[in-house]
Amino acid sequence: MRKVVYSAAMSLDGYIAGPKGESDWIVIDPGLDFGAMFGRFDTILLGRKTYEATSSGGGGGMPGVKSYVFSRTLQQADARGVTVSDDPLQTVTDLKAQPGKDIWLFGGGSLFRSLLELELVDTVGVAIIPVLLGGGVPLLPETPERAGLRLVEHQVYEKTGTVRLEYALV
Amino acid sequence: MRKVVYSAAMSLDGYIAGPKGESDWIVIDPGLDFGAMFGRFDTILLGRKTYEATSSGGGGGMPGVKSYVFSRTLQQADARGVTVSDDPLQTVTDLKAQPGKDIWLFGGGSLFRSLLELELVDTVGVAIIPVLLGGGVPLLPETPERAGLRLVEHQVYEKTGTVRLEYALV
Repeated sequence: MRKVVYSAAMSLDGYIAGPKGESDWIVIDPGLDFGAMFGRFDTILLGRKTYEATSSGGGGGMPGVKSYVFSRTLQQADARGVTVSDDPLQTVTDLKAQPGKDIWLFGGGSLFRSLLELELVDTVGVAIIPVLLGGGVPLLPETPERAGLRLVEHQVYEKTGTVRLEYALV
Repeated sequence: MRKVVYSAAMSLDGYIAGPKGESDWIVIDPGLDFGAMFGRFDTILLGRKTYEATSSGGGGGMPGVKSYVFSRTLQQADARGVTVSDDPLQTVTDLKAQPGKDIWLFGGGSLFRSLLELELVDTVGVAIIPVLLGGGVPLLPETPERAGLRLVEHQVYEKTGTVRLEYALV
């Protein structure tokens, strides 16, 4: 079955964006193979806030990749090129049952928390950037759920000191 | 000069203890060489809360190791076997200038933040335990200071999937 993979860059203190949403601290290691990283996906899941922060307003998305935006307020008519859903349980369960490549849970943290609580996340991958942000958008907002992980992959990118860790949910 | 090293076990989402101070999620990998890990230190720095949580009330400390507790309220007479200071800048600056082994900033996060803001921390080491806690005591409480890091060491403990990363402050 296709996996739902939460993949994000994170500061050592657990933030995926700065206090004002900054991403200027994310260094891109020349050793990172984006083709391999993203070629495993054909579907992207986004929360509404992340969608609005990353879409330029022109609609669309990536060629060959289907995007799903989860929101209770966003209207389908206002979001061209993506599918809007207010029912993550149904939509993601359906997607996982369909054939295809893995599914990239792009973020943000709130959508990760929702899907984690619904037990729909299979894999968590973080690229730990060597910085302490001291505040910002957490990898995982507060939740009473504790989740065990199993380390399945690790890679150190020597040029920037980025450490990529991938875990399976257990 | 002796280094001040913040060394802690951390969940993947950046907590050093659970919401109620729990440490039951910390798995000890059989490959961890505690002798080597702790033999590099002869001095320990603790915040008041961490001191109270870890001391059994009987005073004392580890043989051959000097402990310093930082607090604005704790009285020296109430803390046997440790040195109490209300002036981290002066005390830690003095300690670093003295000969000796490295200095273990044991925690908690608040003392780490204070010493980070005073630019007295040289090294941050985290043992990332494969778990998402969803809340608790953060590695670093919120601070406006952003701190750059340089990865200096990494080790993966295969039995438990613990990943130990050590960074120099830059």
